[in-house]
Amino acid sequence: MFITLEGIEGSGKTTQIDRLAEFFKERRMACVATRQPGGTVIGENIRSILLNPENHNLEPMTELLLYLADRAQHINEVIRPALAAGKTVLCDRYFDATVVYQGFARGLSVELLLKLHRILFENLKPDVTLLLDLSPHQGLKRAWQQLNSGRRAGGESRFENEALAFHEKVRAGYLELAKLEPQRFRIIDAGRSIDHVFAKISKALAPFL
Amino acid sequence: MFITLEGIEGSGKTTQIDRLAEFFKERRMACVATRQPGGTVIGENIRSILLNPENHNLEPMTELLLYLADRAQHINEVIRPALAAGKTVLCDRYFDATVVYQGFARGLSVELLLKLHRILFENLKPDVTLLLDLSPHQGLKRAWQQLNSGRRAGGESRFENEALAFHEKVRAGYLELAKLEPQRFRIIDAGRSIDHVFAKISKALAPFL
Repeated sequence: MFITLEGIEGSGKTTQIDRLAEFFKERRMACVATRQPGGTVIGENIRSILLNPENHNLEPMTELLLYLADRAQHINEVIRPALAAGKTVLCDRYFDATVVYQGFARGLSVELLLKLHRILFENLKPDVTLLLDLSPHQGLKRAWQQLNSGRRAGGESRFENEALAFHEKVRAGYLELAKLEPQRFRIIDAGRSIDHVFAKISKALAPFL
Repeated sequence: MFITLEGIEGSGKTTQIDRLAEFFKERRMACVATRQPGGTVIGENIRSILLNPENHNLEPMTELLLYLADRAQHINEVIRPALAAGKTVLCDRYFDATVVYQGFARGLSVELLLKLHRILFENLKPDVTLLLDLSPHQGLKRAWQQLNSGRRAGGESRFENEALAFHEKVRAGYLELAKLEPQRFRIIDAGRSIDHVFAKISKALAPFL
């Protein structure tokens, strides 16, 4: 099974993926937890170009193609082999993030993004997408707290500089996608405690397990 | 005017671009000499991923998308602004290199590559493409000599490891493209001396200047 977690900065995707991986492990179900961008050595190199605050003049089309290059490597090196071996793949951001960030928020054509996913990746989509929904105000506050505690110091800095308005567009974009594919999306209220959110996630996944 | 130079390793593109840039300068014609991959700071970052010998497991689709990411940045940051300012752009490798290396030589669909160039870059093509044609045997010998003299030590190492057979495919691919667009391509015999090759290039460009 291919499960993705989506949501704005600070929505708790990383924490919940760690919990989910633990959950699968306890049940002796083979699972791979990974992320985009990143998840491969080459992907981490690409990620460092994307997140480098010096690259402020990154063109929207360059940014898109770097995300797609990362995805190509990740699908071929990690996702497809794991699925072929019968493992569950838990991925922190995937295709929907591209549609939402590059399309809804940065203004590239959503139609172009959908077309590229079809022609480059044979339209490989997750079985379930957990959307950790949170107000950008709460999300950015959490992301800042993590930054200041040093947990991910510097890591997301180019994104932290983006305004609240941008994250409002991202949130609205995700909710729009969830409306278009209700059979694939599960919307989880990410404003609650970690335990509460995890309980909701387990409940949402129960019918698939 | 947008001029590209294409050819296998060791065909002398870099040397001839330097000469051409000098030629334009002497005639007080504004010109920008640049290269793909590279040509921008972000492009050089991407280039270093592409040429890193440790990245031997780079998937063909990842490689393609990294070349396209570099091209997106280069077109928007360098080529379009220079052309808009009335300058001549001299580019060491461009779109044809992608069709030949990723398509003819590495086996990605040529149709896909042409489609991507149309939908991503509005099919921006050069006015003239100078194809420096050379046997791979001669080309690789020259490239090795340059490497050993330290001129570009380490720079192209991932490519130097590729077999002669691969470069035969590249050469044949370039000649195939030249046949398809004879109005755009000028085939230059790159097996002669630097001066002789440059004389042929000037002659080929004369009608455009």
